[in-house]
Amino acid sequence: MSRGLFISFEGVEGCGKSTQLRLLEEYLRAQGRDCVVTREPGGVPIAEAIRELLLNPDHEAMTPEAELLLYAAARAQHVGEKIVPALEAGKVVLCDRFADSTTAYQGGGRGFDTARLAQLHGWATGGRWPDRTLLLDLDAEAGLERARQRGRRDRIEREDIAFHQRVRQAYLDLAVLEPERIKVVSASGSIEEIHQQIRGLVDELIQP
Amino acid sequence: MSRGLFISFEGVEGCGKSTQLRLLEEYLRAQGRDCVVTREPGGVPIAEAIRELLLNPDHEAMTPEAELLLYAAARAQHVGEKIVPALEAGKVVLCDRFADSTTAYQGGGRGFDTARLAQLHGWATGGRWPDRTLLLDLDAEAGLERARQRGRRDRIEREDIAFHQRVRQAYLDLAVLEPERIKVVSASGSIEEIHQQIRGLVDELIQP
Repeated sequence: MSRGLFISFEGVEGCGKSTQLRLLEEYLRAQGRDCVVTREPGGVPIAEAIRELLLNPDHEAMTPEAELLLYAAARAQHVGEKIVPALEAGKVVLCDRFADSTTAYQGGGRGFDTARLAQLHGWATGGRWPDRTLLLDLDAEAGLERARQRGRRDRIEREDIAFHQRVRQAYLDLAVLEPERIKVVSASGSIEEIHQQIRGLVDELIQP
Repeated sequence: MSRGLFISFEGVEGCGKSTQLRLLEEYLRAQGRDCVVTREPGGVPIAEAIRELLLNPDHEAMTPEAELLLYAAARAQHVGEKIVPALEAGKVVLCDRFADSTTAYQGGGRGFDTARLAQLHGWATGGRWPDRTLLLDLDAEAGLERARQRGRRDRIEREDIAFHQRVRQAYLDLAVLEPERIKVVSASGSIEEIHQQIRGLVDELIQP
């Protein structure tokens, strides 16, 4: 279908996704690969406008269903306008969070039925899933502690520890269901150790 | 479940929905009934903000899937924040367009699969459908001609005649599938004739 490579990073707050995404980008660029670095929700203007609706503190009345559908709308726009065209142009797309975040946070965290979420993912992703998902697994308490040290606590980070434990478990459950796509990487090692492991998991895909 | 009465108005552009909604509101208010008049997309601030995203002329890049999910998000917010609370308070909710518009325009008009749309309606409506839907049926050409005489032509009105004929047909197909809820009213009579017919269809529900 598309000639590029689609890699997503997932994990609980404070797991080190963003750091590892940047290190992988450097590694791939050094090989002369054309990388597109993006994030969810957002990545294109319409999706960033939806992100603003989602984060707007005046929108306390937002229902869980509306929130979920806005995440899906932002993803559909991101996939259609940026991810698929980049992949069709043969680029490597590195995405900080994708549909698995919805399954973990809205499914595991908030309790939406995961089979129903899968239907919604069909609309949002158009069936274009990552070729590889790097799940940085970390104990929820350790992740929250790291996130706290960064000094900012957003709406999600303020959820209680049980919420974050459910999120972690939902991620691990997904990895069991899709072992070829989703690779679990322990996020408790050093930044360099984790990076080496991620390199190996990406090299598998690009080196025949 | 809820003690109120939920009535939606549907039909192609220029079918006279808004006029008939106002006449029915007057009729019901004269009986001392507490009415909430609302519309889609919109009706509450978050849904109106989504409506602005949908109508923003800078958003030409919007994909059909993102558009559909934004309509669904706006509906979920509208249902959760306004329609259900009004019905639980025993009010009559009169809504200018609801989920059938999505089936007719995005399903019939744009070709999205209607079985898949039904899944999405599950998220958006939370299962709360109108007690009665008044479908003002009009030949698509006659409707467009009326809409043109109003002087404004929005994005939908600019679609070609075949699009509007598919929309009309999709509405009629829905009425066959749900004959108890959806009542077809010919919109080619006089305003007063149509109003009398609508009164009859609403009186059935409120007079035991």
